[in-house]
Amino acid sequence: MKHLVALCALLIPPVLAEAGEPIATGDLGLVVERASGSVLIIDRSDHGAVGRVEGLGDLSHASLTYSPDERFAYVFGRDGGLSKVDMLQQEAVARTVQAGNSIGGAISDDGKLVAVSNYEPGGVKVFDADTLNLVADIPAAGKTIGLVDIPGRRFVWTVWDTGEVFLGDFSGEAPVITALGNAGANPFDAVVTDDAHTYLVGLFGEKGVTAFDLWAEKPGPRKFLTDYGKTGEDMPVYKMPHLQGWAFTEGQYALPAVGRHELLWVDRESLKQVAATPVHGQPVFVIAQPASPFVWVNFATPLNDTVQVVDSRSHEVVATLTPGKAILHMEFAPRGAEVWISSRDDNKVLIYDTRRREKVAEIDAQAPSGIFFTARAHQPGL
Amino acid sequence: MKHLVALCALLIPPVLAEAGEPIATGDLGLVVERASGSVLIIDRSDHGAVGRVEGLGDLSHASLTYSPDERFAYVFGRDGGLSKVDMLQQEAVARTVQAGNSIGGAISDDGKLVAVSNYEPGGVKVFDADTLNLVADIPAAGKTIGLVDIPGRRFVWTVWDTGEVFLGDFSGEAPVITALGNAGANPFDAVVTDDAHTYLVGLFGEKGVTAFDLWAEKPGPRKFLTDYGKTGEDMPVYKMPHLQGWAFTEGQYALPAVGRHELLWVDRESLKQVAATPVHGQPVFVIAQPASPFVWVNFATPLNDTVQVVDSRSHEVVATLTPGKAILHMEFAPRGAEVWISSRDDNKVLIYDTRRREKVAEIDAQAPSGIFFTARAHQPGL
Repeated sequence: MKHLVALCALLIPPVLAEAGEPIATGDLGLVVERASGSVLIIDRSDHGAVGRVEGLGDLSHASLTYSPDERFAYVFGRDGGLSKVDMLQQEAVARTVQAGNSIGGAISDDGKLVAVSNYEPGGVKVFDADTLNLVADIPAAGKTIGLVDIPGRRFVWTVWDTGEVFLGDFSGEAPVITALGNAGANPFDAVVTDDAHTYLVGLFGEKGVTAFDLWAEKPGPRKFLTDYGKTGEDMPVYKMPHLQGWAFTEGQYALPAVGRHELLWVDRESLKQVAATPVHGQPVFVIAQPASPFVWVNFATPLNDTVQVVDSRSHEVVATLTPGKAILHMEFAPRGAEVWISSRDDNKVLIYDTRRREKVAEIDAQAPSGIFFTARAHQPGL
Repeated sequence: MKHLVALCALLIPPVLAEAGEPIATGDLGLVVERASGSVLIIDRSDHGAVGRVEGLGDLSHASLTYSPDERFAYVFGRDGGLSKVDMLQQEAVARTVQAGNSIGGAISDDGKLVAVSNYEPGGVKVFDADTLNLVADIPAAGKTIGLVDIPGRRFVWTVWDTGEVFLGDFSGEAPVITALGNAGANPFDAVVTDDAHTYLVGLFGEKGVTAFDLWAEKPGPRKFLTDYGKTGEDMPVYKMPHLQGWAFTEGQYALPAVGRHELLWVDRESLKQVAATPVHGQPVFVIAQPASPFVWVNFATPLNDTVQVVDSRSHEVVATLTPGKAILHMEFAPRGAEVWISSRDDNKVLIYDTRRREKVAEIDAQAPSGIFFTARAHQPGL
């Protein structure tokens, strides 16, 4: 394995490092290499890897967010490490181990603040995006999950242990923290819609999902899907689904049913379930293909060699692909022409044309998991 | 005036030209300087201008689109000129005068093709995005308007003289052109929704708007708003509204009423009018503030010193601003924190904080009109 790593490093041409030739950042991205604590810098236009940054700690459950200029990535590691990666210089320019165990983070709408939600200890820490100096330390009565940015230098997060949801406003001299109410028993993840209108909290300790209208004067909890699965027997949950993958399409939410081989479709206005789609396994990510009626779904182990495409109008599976071994994540080109798929156990990132649904290229990567294009810098809630 | 121009040029620090320091492109943008045939390169994070590219011909009615890497802009001039501007090197790297009079253009979802819609002669020309070599020349029975990109290397456009709508597929060896049907009398502009689902055509020769469902097997025309304005007397139209500004928010379209001091709200599903908002003047651009319930509106001469903010839930005007003289365009930071406003007759671009709706900075520019941030590179239909 060590030889392979060394070989891979040699094979990557140091394109960005060449003197004189300026590089634009709009089509770059990062692939989390979960076993080696590194990120691979990818170029979407060239279908290639252009560099690697190492030494980022435990990335076995990592995510990241981008600065507004699409130059810097803030990488949130499982070990509480927060690293600032410069994609042009191909190096970590700042790093802090800010907690014992963390779960993710977000950047403020103006790019000035980076917030991290922590397990050990719980709470939220907020850092200056430039220096990574600590700006605010907000304690919580447990593990924090579902941290998202909303406009006006604000963040929303949820506490796993108590079900409480908080809104933090960091636009003034001192943070102002407001309790929005209780989401329910053991919220496992949360997400905000792309218009920053609705904060959706998935529950594990009870059935259902809780919505908060963030445009309301006083946002409060509104529970839905409280009946789902009551008639069937639950299966063991092999992998908790990720709600950042929740698709919002055709006036609906497409949700992964926890512990079941099903997608659930909910009307965005009424919050009533409108359909269920039987799928290949327990869904992990349900992601809308941009500018299309389709969502793409991957699955929990041991059924994770498969990806399915579902039409949001008919709610039917229209394609079943088996791209490779241990499909962990998918990321679309922002206008939807391609989807990049990480196949962990093949050590490859696979690039599919979304119109023909055929592979057009592949890139070597070490146990790849999350794929993140810089276009995320411009999307509220990512 | 000449002295002022020379002075402005001197005042702009050549930041990008400095050797050694790499520049990211995610927060750059261009401001069209309509009188001088130039574009000003702006840096969103720094609230500043960083360069100027001149010699782009007649930009009195210009628009532009970006390459996927956010490095190159394709500038469509009124005189039929198509220029490729390199924002990192700060120069025009290719230019062709491809028609006698043109109205706008679009880039394919994969960034490989640039299409231009022309008045003189009519039709659509398609160019290689790299070299600007002509790839296809599609004639039409008149002036083409409302050219947009849709996924799969395809474009849709409309013919002013005949009302015909066409879909061109450029993914194969030879272009395949399909007639989608007739939109109605004298379509003046068209736009595609951000999910590439619906192509909306505004009519000038008759009342109404025509929608085409681009996800359908055989898209066809569906007319709506055919009654609007029938009870009132029309005023002279001082400026045709731009439909690329049509806002899509809260399940509605917010449309400028041609020739009237009104915004019209239409339910996205039923295509029924749900409300009308009396506003300060004849609306030109109606643009949704990202991640918010608000749309911002500017107005035709002589009432063009004013901008209004309307809440898409109540349909009421919630703020009226008078930022400057001859407000021609507004562009939002992609996560919605700021709006940049061009004030042509003040020779300024004004930067407003969207939460407090207060001016936070301004930039000198020569008779600025359109403002375009590179984030557009990642948005289908722009």
